[in-house]
Amino acid sequence: MRKVDVIQAILSDNNAVAEENRKALDAAGVFGINVMASPGAGKTSLILATAARLPDETKLCVVEGDLASSIDAELIAEQGIPVVQINTGGGCHLDAAMIRSALPRLPLDEIQLLMVENVGNLVCPANFLLGTHLNVVVASTPEGHDKPFKYPGMFNAARIVLINKFDLSEVFDFDLEYFSNGVRMLNPDVPIIPISCRTGAGMDAWVAWLLKNS
Amino acid sequence: MRKVDVIQAILSDNNAVAEENRKALDAAGVFGINVMASPGAGKTSLILATAARLPDETKLCVVEGDLASSIDAELIAEQGIPVVQINTGGGCHLDAAMIRSALPRLPLDEIQLLMVENVGNLVCPANFLLGTHLNVVVASTPEGHDKPFKYPGMFNAARIVLINKFDLSEVFDFDLEYFSNGVRMLNPDVPIIPISCRTGAGMDAWVAWLLKNS
Repeated sequence: MRKVDVIQAILSDNNAVAEENRKALDAAGVFGINVMASPGAGKTSLILATAARLPDETKLCVVEGDLASSIDAELIAEQGIPVVQINTGGGCHLDAAMIRSALPRLPLDEIQLLMVENVGNLVCPANFLLGTHLNVVVASTPEGHDKPFKYPGMFNAARIVLINKFDLSEVFDFDLEYFSNGVRMLNPDVPIIPISCRTGAGMDAWVAWLLKNS
Repeated sequence: MRKVDVIQAILSDNNAVAEENRKALDAAGVFGINVMASPGAGKTSLILATAARLPDETKLCVVEGDLASSIDAELIAEQGIPVVQINTGGGCHLDAAMIRSALPRLPLDEIQLLMVENVGNLVCPANFLLGTHLNVVVASTPEGHDKPFKYPGMFNAARIVLINKFDLSEVFDFDLEYFSNGVRMLNPDVPIIPISCRTGAGMDAWVAWLLKNS
């Protein structure tokens, strides 16, 4: 069996499980979001800052994906948000089977929104459907404005791109136009919203977009 | 063939090619470094800042690994440094066969040092030997001090850890002791050097260490 056949077989199996997950979420009336980013771009911060701004009738739960540790899940749980930690044991992305195993441990009948924090990786997670409804890619100004050109698969997979740590864009000489041109070459109509999870800038625009599109 | 068998076969083939690469480098008297980090941590900046501080008798060349684009290779070439760009076409790491294909395009008889910039990814590159002599992992303060706990494979594979953008450690509440404890749990004797490619802080210590250990 050639390497490429194996990879296609793995992706095809994954897609079938992702479809099951989607049906389970739809049946429960839960909208699922796959949050993807480089390590340290601010995925957990985005989840916490989003949770703080959701209306009371939109209840959230979270799946945390990490190679190891439960640092992020503990931060989420401290805010009273139901959370399941998945440790991939070295694996570089979440896959649909991991989400399938997490779903029965979540109170799907009591929530409206599921945010899945993928492994910090700007490459591999883009290739694995989870069964969620929406891909959010979180870029950040310290990473530089050239990332769309270097990691096209991820920015191509995004339904919305958030640029975190935008309060520090001048410190990092971050060129929003250059970045946006790179994204739009790949993905012409994707919204791009500069945010700062720390200061809260841009968060209202993101949450309004999310509520409109979920 | 099970998935795990396929992965083991791929890694075993890769190790054999890595051994060939090592012999080719040793025969030419070239010391090879594999630079690994998250996207935007500062791999290219490290290479440029290192090049500027090497003694005249230590000539450098570079292999640039990216999914797409030649942005970094152009920056390196502008400094008069011989460079080969490898585009992985979506692949999440360099492998030994890619390095083997690059070696004949490098002036190995005229240089002493080869720096390989791996794909920006804190997971997958750690699993693929390239035939280089030394793994450098570049962390950065904006990514946060919890990365060793979350990405243990990478920090376990490091022979030295550099923490870039350390001039901004206060902005990001970066706790050096927490980070260092995480690294040392995995890799007790690895040197950890805070640096700033922008200000030059720590660069002399890194270059001195490199010249002593190459």
